[in-house]
Formats: sequence, structure tokens, C-alpha cells
Amino acid sequence: MNERYRKSVDLFVRAARVIPEGIYGHKNPGFLLPGESPYYAARASGSRYWDVDGNEYLDFLCGYGPVILGHNHPQVEEAVRRQMDKGIAFNHPGEPMVELAERLVGLISVADWALFAKNGSDVTTWAIRVAREHTGRKKVVMVRGTYHGAHAWCSAYPAGVLPEERANVLKMDWNHPEQLERLVEEHRGEIAAVIMTPYHHPTYAAQVMPAEGYWDSIRRICDREGIVLILDDIRAGFRLDVHGSHEVFGIEPDLVCYAKSIGNGHPIAVAVGREEFREAAEAVFISGTFWFSSVEMVAALTTLRILEETDAIAEMARLGRRLKEGLEELGAAHGFRVTVSGPPALPYLTFDDDPDLYHMQAFCREAIARGVFFHPHHNWFICAAHTDADIDRALEVADAAFAAVREGE
Amino acid sequence: MNERYRKSVDLFVRAARVIPEGIYGHKNPGFLLPGESPYYAARASGSRYWDVDGNEYLDFLCGYGPVILGHNHPQVEEAVRRQMDKGIAFNHPGEPMVELAERLVGLISVADWALFAKNGSDVTTWAIRVAREHTGRKKVVMVRGTYHGAHAWCSAYPAGVLPEERANVLKMDWNHPEQLERLVEEHRGEIAAVIMTPYHHPTYAAQVMPAEGYWDSIRRICDREGIVLILDDIRAGFRLDVHGSHEVFGIEPDLVCYAKSIGNGHPIAVAVGREEFREAAEAVFISGTFWFSSVEMVAALTTLRILEETDAIAEMARLGRRLKEGLEELGAAHGFRVTVSGPPALPYLTFDDDPDLYHMQAFCREAIARGVFFHPHHNWFICAAHTDADIDRALEVADAAFAAVREGE
Repeated sequence: MNERYRKSVDLFVRAARVIPEGIYGHKNPGFLLPGESPYYAARASGSRYWDVDGNEYLDFLCGYGPVILGHNHPQVEEAVRRQMDKGIAFNHPGEPMVELAERLVGLISVADWALFAKNGSDVTTWAIRVAREHTGRKKVVMVRGTYHGAHAWCSAYPAGVLPEERANVLKMDWNHPEQLERLVEEHRGEIAAVIMTPYHHPTYAAQVMPAEGYWDSIRRICDREGIVLILDDIRAGFRLDVHGSHEVFGIEPDLVCYAKSIGNGHPIAVAVGREEFREAAEAVFISGTFWFSSVEMVAALTTLRILEETDAIAEMARLGRRLKEGLEELGAAHGFRVTVSGPPALPYLTFDDDPDLYHMQAFCREAIARGVFFHPHHNWFICAAHTDADIDRALEVADAAFAAVREGE
Repeated sequence: MNERYRKSVDLFVRAARVIPEGIYGHKNPGFLLPGESPYYAARASGSRYWDVDGNEYLDFLCGYGPVILGHNHPQVEEAVRRQMDKGIAFNHPGEPMVELAERLVGLISVADWALFAKNGSDVTTWAIRVAREHTGRKKVVMVRGTYHGAHAWCSAYPAGVLPEERANVLKMDWNHPEQLERLVEEHRGEIAAVIMTPYHHPTYAAQVMPAEGYWDSIRRICDREGIVLILDDIRAGFRLDVHGSHEVFGIEPDLVCYAKSIGNGHPIAVAVGREEFREAAEAVFISGTFWFSSVEMVAALTTLRILEETDAIAEMARLGRRLKEGLEELGAAHGFRVTVSGPPALPYLTFDDDPDLYHMQAFCREAIARGVFFHPHHNWFICAAHTDADIDRALEVADAAFAAVREGE
């Protein structure tokens, strides 16, 4: 056992008795580096967090995305506490729900309405239903290797899921609009929706930006065939553009799903859509006991205001570019061919010849041991609390990590 | 327009432009009394809340159940704020997740493990999948008129839902175990699970307690046929017994779902189960970005501790009995045959001859206008902040409300 993670491991041993897998879902240590990365976090502030053993990390995962302004952003947390002083769970929504919907309709070009939930899965699944209700069709097209949540229709893990629940989901490959053409020919008049992320961010692999003309082709096919175009902007939403990632890529979606960063860590998911889908949106039931709390709506209002009023988004992109360029240079200096893919604010490093991910895992293990938290299998996140000094430090550690990987070969 | 709700209505007019239905789901004003009850809440404290027009209410809905200790319970909110000071969204779970699972395994007789999510629907759907994975069977039996959430397999609203997604759900009537026998004969070896609430709490109708021997019959059939018995204790859980409602009714479930009140309003859902289902529980993927936050786990730990250490549960039952007896007496005194059904801590009033719910809606309208919030179509909730003086006041208002209903006839 790595003594550095003794308390993490002790807690995990306790957890394994009383929780399936000890830690389940995307936070399962098997998705990280079992025995070579922390299992439990104790506290966080700005761009840093501390695990239960007291080890400090420069955080390049940001809670898998939600933390966009930095951990415990003072203005967000102050607004949240002021709202919490008024109460948590009411019989009715509060005024912040109306304000947040108005703000989103003003902010997002394709939003004529908005609604709120708790999980990303809540809104991706609901958007699919709205498309089915609107078109009277059953089938949905998604891109292979994309994560739209853990619900039956899209889960990557089939255990306990019935074939019937997935029977109407068709798959195509990213950046291959001709595959959508083929699906449309095979299932003419049967496809309700195409759901996609603005760029491709699979796990265990490099991110892929949309090819020139890709989104135009997708939109053209959808228009021609009466298919609803759903954008799942849950991962990148508000980190690339406060008006939504579709602005960056020139996408014109019909419905858009957000979650993750809109409340800077507070649990809220959002669906927005064009006017013509309002009737279907009103017909398709969606609800949850905790969804109408003003606390998360105030967190979102404050987060959006700060993103609008500051240069946070430009700064995240600038720092991400510095990290990307620095990592690619350092990799080359150590004799590795590495690529940092994706938008600069959501970068992900891969080694070009690394089929079993051995190099990537070794690199992240060495970085984590030196206090820089890079995820080996999932894209990273820059937040507004990161500084040039943080990037300097990350590159210094990356230099040592590349050297250690080379040495370990 | 009722001037008493002017700000509510003004906000709703704004909301109707930017949110489907203005207010969707179970908080839609159509589920209450449009124009005759508040649409938006501003703040709450203890057993009271205030709407955006400044009207004060004695709260007998408690946020549709989550508020069990009273709004803004000082000990819960202090613990929550202390945890929030450490951060909201981490890359890993925190120690409170392990502590909460250990507490639940110690507290709940059938719990050998626990896991956590955000919505009740998250855990009811997951429990169904675990049963399917465990048995290798497809079909699920539920009781007509029961709400297990808004997911496709159980939603009461078919818009946007495919027949395929519900094809393996069979229905029976509450308190009719012979119907389960018949379903078992028709689908022998095909039924994975029976999912039920501990007693029947439909909307728009009186609650129905389990008949003598009902649960024994259900358990016996499940044992004989290898069917997984899932208890949906989301609505009543921890309000009747800190060890779970199954203790009150002598039920021996295999898997149990909780949500609502366990965090006194903070968003958390729970599934627990017996050891023999651990393997299936580990196989069936479940995850959500916001699910591992320690904030809600600390809220749950504090809420459970207070429920254990105080006589809150007995007091809620005692006050509920006072309300029930008082309302039934007052109804009779005004010449109405009324029944208060369900467990005393979750009471619901119905008029015996009231097929169009006219009397019930009039009664609640009159009570709400006098500052006592009774829901016309959904069961009510007592919380630990209610006092004898609150019950006195509620009965005083009920007396006037019954008189007004009589007068309006």
C-alpha cells in the first residue's frame, strides 16, 4: 500500500463493507489509478484540494467539471447561504426560478424557454421524450462512445437494462455525417432526434473537434428529415462561451441540455429549447421533489453573472492554451509524441503510441504523486481560479512526470 | 384575480413566457387550486412559510415531504454550512458518505449496504434494474395509482414515452394479493420484482393501509417465486420509524428506496439492500455528477441523529392523531362525513361523498385563505416543528373552513 493514501484506503476498506463497490459510478477508483491516487477528498479552495490524508493537489478535474469559478467561490457561496437562510424545500418554486429562466432565454440564442432538474440524465432523457412527442416518431440517433448519462436508453453498461429500452437507439460515428444519411435512408420517417455533444469527448481516448462542415451537414439532414437536433452541452456548457458552446461551433440546435458547471458545483441541470417545441415540452411530464429549490437557482444566477462580467472564460482558454503548448513541448523534449486535444479549457493529454494507456496512467500517477491532479481516462478542466503560477507549477511537475515515465520504461 | 396572490400571479405571468407551463411537474398550480393558492414561496421557518405576497401559512405539506424536522432546522443547517465551508463538488467522495452508509446499515434491519443519488426516481429505477440483473427476468409488478417517479417505466403520463419502455410492467390493485397470484401464474418465471409503497398513498383519493395479512401474502409469493420485493419508502420513510416504515407494517423487503425527508430538504436519495443483492448492485451502473457531495450526506446524518435522539417521530404521530380526530369531529359537527386516512404523521382528509372533489377543494381553499396550507389532492405531512398550538390553530381554521363549505353549497 502507498502510505501516502493510508487514510483513503482505510476509509475505502470500511466503505467496501457497506456500499456496493465501495465507491460506485464514475468516481470508482478503478476509473482512476487504484492505490496510486486518493479515494476521498476532505476540502477544497480555489484551484486546490486536499485529500483525507492531507495531501494537497492542484485540481485539473474540478469535480469532473462543475467547479468553473474555483472551489468555494466567495460570491456564489455568499448568495447560496443568503438563499438558504430563507429555507431549502418549499411547497412552491421561488422567484429565482423565474429569474434564471429569463436570464437563460436572454443569454442563449435558441432558448425560448428553460426548465430545471437535478441530473444531466434527467434532461437528456426528457429532451429525447420531447422530440418523440413532437415528431410522433420513436428512433433516436447518438454517437458511439458518447456519454449522455446513466439511463437505460444510453447507458454504456447493459447490466439490468432491457433490450426493449434501447431498441430505438441507433448509433453513428463522430464526424461521419454520411452515416446519418445512411441511417435516415434505412429508417426514413422514423427518426425523432439526433443527440450529440458539441465536440466529441469520449473516455479513454483523445477528444475530437467537429470537422469542417460537420455541423452544417447534421443540421441540413435534420431540417430535411424533420428530425429534432438535441445538443448535449452538459460537459462543456458555459466554459467555452457564456452563450453556450453551440456559438463556438456555429451549431443551431433545437433543444440544449446543460448541468455540471452552471451552479459552480451546486446540483442543477437545465434544458432549453425553441418555441416550436414548447407544446411538446408542456406535454412531457418531468418532476422531482428537490428540483424547485431556489438555492441552486441562485448559485446558477451568480455563476452566470460572474462569467458575463469578468474575463473568466477568455482566461480559462488562455491558461488552457498555455498548458496544452507546455505539455506538448515537454512531451517532445522527453521523446514522447503527445497530443493535448479538445478545447483549451477542457484539455486532455494522450500519448500517440499508447494502446494500453500505460504511458498515460504512469504520467498521471507521477503527476498526482507530485500534487498535480490529472485524470488518466477523462478530459480535464481549467477553472477561473487557476493562475499562471498554477500552470507554471503544473508544467514543472509534468516535466518531472514525463522524465519518470521515460525512466520507468 | 384574488388580490391576495397578486405577486404570485405576476411572477407566474412572467414564468409562463420562459418556462413550459410556467411551473411544471408536481408543483404545477393545476395540482393545487389555481388562483386560490400561492404559486411562489419566499421563505420558511419551523412549521411556517411565507409566499411572495407576504401571506403566512401553517405548513402541512412540508415541501411535499422533505421537511421532517421543520424548515431551516438550526442543527441541520449549521452542519450543512460547516460542510459547505470545506467545498461542494470534489473529485472523490468524502468521509460522510462512508459514515452515512454505516449509519443506515446499522439502522435498517434489511440494509447490508447503501448507496446514494439525487432523485427518488434514480433509486426506484435502479432497484428495478438490480432485480432484473439478479433474477435474469424482465417483468416488474407495480400497484395501480402508485407514484414511483417520472421515469418511463412508471410515469403516469405517457407523452413521449414508448410502449416498449413500459412493456414489461404489470399492474395489480392494492390489497389484492390474489391479483399477484394471477400475474405469477400468467407470467411464471418471468417476474423479476414487485415494487410497492408500505401503504397506498395515491393522489386525488384516500390513503389505504395494508389489510391484515397483505404483506405476508406478498412476501410469501415473492419467496416462492424467486421475485425481488422492492419497498418504495420514499414518501413515508423515517417519518413513521427511524428504522424505516417496513418495521411499522412488519414488511421484510429485499431492497428499499428512500429520499424526501432523509436530508430535511437537502437533495439526496438512498437505496439499501440485503447482502444477496450486492453482486447485482455492483453490476448495475448508476452515477451522477453531483451525487458524491458530502453536503447532503451531512444533512442526512444530522437529521437521522436528531430523529434517533429526540421523540420527534412519536410527537409527529401524536400531533397527527390530534389533527385527525379534530378534523373528523369538526367535519361531523358541520354535517359532513369526512375521513382522515393514512398514518397520523402523513394524514389526508377526504369527504366521503365528493366524487368531483368539489368539497375537498373548497375546504382547502378556505383553509389556505385563512393561513393553513392543506393540499386538496395530495397527502399532508406533519413535521417535528409543529406544536399543539399549531394543531389548535389548524382546527380553528378547519372549523371556519367547514362552515364556509357548508355555506357555499
